[in-house]
Amino acid sequence: MTTNIIKKRTDAIRRLLDKKKMDCLIVTKPANVTYVTGFMGDDSWAVITRQGRTYLVTDSRYTEQAQAECPNCRIIRRKQPITEAIGRLIKKLKPVLSKACTEQRRSVEGSVQIVGVESSTSLADFAAIRKNVAARLKTVADVIESLRSSKDAAEIAAITTAASIAAEALKQTIPQIKPGISESELAGMLDLEIRKLGAKNGFDTIVAFGPNASRPHHQPTTRKLRQIDTILVDFGAKYKGYCCDITRCFAVGRPTALYKRAYDVVELAQAAAIKKVKAGVKMVKVDAAARDVICTGDLPVYGHGTGHSFGLEIHESPFVKPESKGRLKAGQVLTIEPGIYMPGKLGVRIEDDILVTQTGCRILTRCCPRSPWLL
Amino acid sequence: MTTNIIKKRTDAIRRLLDKKKMDCLIVTKPANVTYVTGFMGDDSWAVITRQGRTYLVTDSRYTEQAQAECPNCRIIRRKQPITEAIGRLIKKLKPVLSKACTEQRRSVEGSVQIVGVESSTSLADFAAIRKNVAARLKTVADVIESLRSSKDAAEIAAITTAASIAAEALKQTIPQIKPGISESELAGMLDLEIRKLGAKNGFDTIVAFGPNASRPHHQPTTRKLRQIDTILVDFGAKYKGYCCDITRCFAVGRPTALYKRAYDVVELAQAAAIKKVKAGVKMVKVDAAARDVICTGDLPVYGHGTGHSFGLEIHESPFVKPESKGRLKAGQVLTIEPGIYMPGKLGVRIEDDILVTQTGCRILTRCCPRSPWLL
Repeated sequence: MTTNIIKKRTDAIRRLLDKKKMDCLIVTKPANVTYVTGFMGDDSWAVITRQGRTYLVTDSRYTEQAQAECPNCRIIRRKQPITEAIGRLIKKLKPVLSKACTEQRRSVEGSVQIVGVESSTSLADFAAIRKNVAARLKTVADVIESLRSSKDAAEIAAITTAASIAAEALKQTIPQIKPGISESELAGMLDLEIRKLGAKNGFDTIVAFGPNASRPHHQPTTRKLRQIDTILVDFGAKYKGYCCDITRCFAVGRPTALYKRAYDVVELAQAAAIKKVKAGVKMVKVDAAARDVICTGDLPVYGHGTGHSFGLEIHESPFVKPESKGRLKAGQVLTIEPGIYMPGKLGVRIEDDILVTQTGCRILTRCCPRSPWLL
Repeated sequence: MTTNIIKKRTDAIRRLLDKKKMDCLIVTKPANVTYVTGFMGDDSWAVITRQGRTYLVTDSRYTEQAQAECPNCRIIRRKQPITEAIGRLIKKLKPVLSKACTEQRRSVEGSVQIVGVESSTSLADFAAIRKNVAARLKTVADVIESLRSSKDAAEIAAITTAASIAAEALKQTIPQIKPGISESELAGMLDLEIRKLGAKNGFDTIVAFGPNASRPHHQPTTRKLRQIDTILVDFGAKYKGYCCDITRCFAVGRPTALYKRAYDVVELAQAAAIKKVKAGVKMVKVDAAARDVICTGDLPVYGHGTGHSFGLEIHESPFVKPESKGRLKAGQVLTIEPGIYMPGKLGVRIEDDILVTQTGCRILTRCCPRSPWLL
């Protein structure tokens, strides 16, 4: 991420801190750390001050990487436990703030009295922060998540590239699919094609043959592909930290009439949901559109949500489901992924990624092959 | 895991609950949920009662899988948020406990008054539990982790198989390594070989060519392998939920004298640490043994720990580092992984997995090729 983008994000957080009257925010959630610093490693926390300065507290495994990835941050290489390092940093912030921000009366006088901590922090970490940070701690929920829910241009570009890579990887993989390969092997082949294209899999690739697909989150096994069989792949590439999330179903040999019907109905259900998508539309309406088609088709309605946002994480807010509150906003990216699951018989899901716009949506995964009867 | 093994674990937790005078424990950490239930999916919590009954609270995506994997558990398929489902369950526990446990006076009278919550739970989840569970909540740290730190026979068998698979995958990959392939591609090739052998990668495979290896947790890039180059791979297979963790270094063409020297010193450092391993030995002694060799060799000492345990997670307690307290115990599995990092020049790390025994240790990764000058 360019320094400009990171600065924009930091500014937005600064304004939120101002509003909440907090002197700084301790960012512990890995995806949020990436969002505010550009850092792509693990085991590191960020501290953002109300003055807009960002510190990344990391260790020797990551200092070189952090220096390259985070030009906007002061890198602190810790040798002690992370909460101790955070405590020391926040203690030191006082004189720095006092000198630098003479215009901020409150900072001059006391500074760093109220420290925000993300509500995704564990109880154990929070207790350790409390022990080490001499300030009032305030739990904050979704400060950074709310910023992340609408994607900026750089994020949309990264997600679009991830989607193109995933689509190309699937195209490269399809001709390699032969009866006799295992679910696990096919998952590995797809992941390798993604790797060859300079990305990596964004989450554990799901490959399910035949009735195994009735488990929406099936984990690939040694089950081998038969001469007449079905394949479900749920996969995504991660590019510059950003995921995509695609599900495709294929038949090897002639599928059963039930499978064909289920596939057609899921396809119609997905199209009905996508047709509803537009900024301002209630999320429950999108969810209901897909479910209604499956209900009408007299087939079992899926138990999971119809879609979810994604980005730095594979599941992000908002979630499109029957209990959803609120409306879609332009700039959100979502999966639309209805399915039909009949244990012991079949599983079908079709999943595409869309960008919500003022006038409707843009399908980011249109380039991904979806003809089911190719093999 | 067999029902017997799971029962043994539940019994141990039951005894701990008895000792801590808790009526039940809410298990939220995914690896701990797996440990106490056998369930390998996500987004599910377990509740273990003092009477030794285990409930798995999951959703429709996982019910089929949970039924297959958790014969010891009552599966609860939730439709509401997980904390609400947990609240309802704990409310219902009362009459069940009253009938079943007439010998436990306290349970008969009131039951489910004190509920343990793992300290790895997030602040947000804890607040939601508090809202939904009408009982006194008590945070508990490392209840299940302490059981997990010594591995039972089934766990050691799974880790040993994971290590054999990883070793075989590397053997299959080495002949495919050619100048021109990228770090990312090599990572994908190794992962695919692991998949072909019926396992999957236990964590994001690290491949670092040349000076990129000076970043201990380097993420594979599109950097291509040169005619004369070096390779560091840090990888592991995951088999039946259990990881292994191996690092190997190779040279393509003739390595520099500095690289050779660094390699030899790291190898000596690792051997010195492994030699110290035995049940009862202070962990700091193992750590110091490796560092001393590197110090004596007048080369920069690594900033990370010398080793860590692993199992269901890739990093588990205990950690072997200069600040370690305590002694090794038989049944622990550990990595031993000293390294030398010289930014812009080189990175060398050698990592093997060992099982601590009463008389010393057993190296679980001896089968993994380590001759560095093969290519």
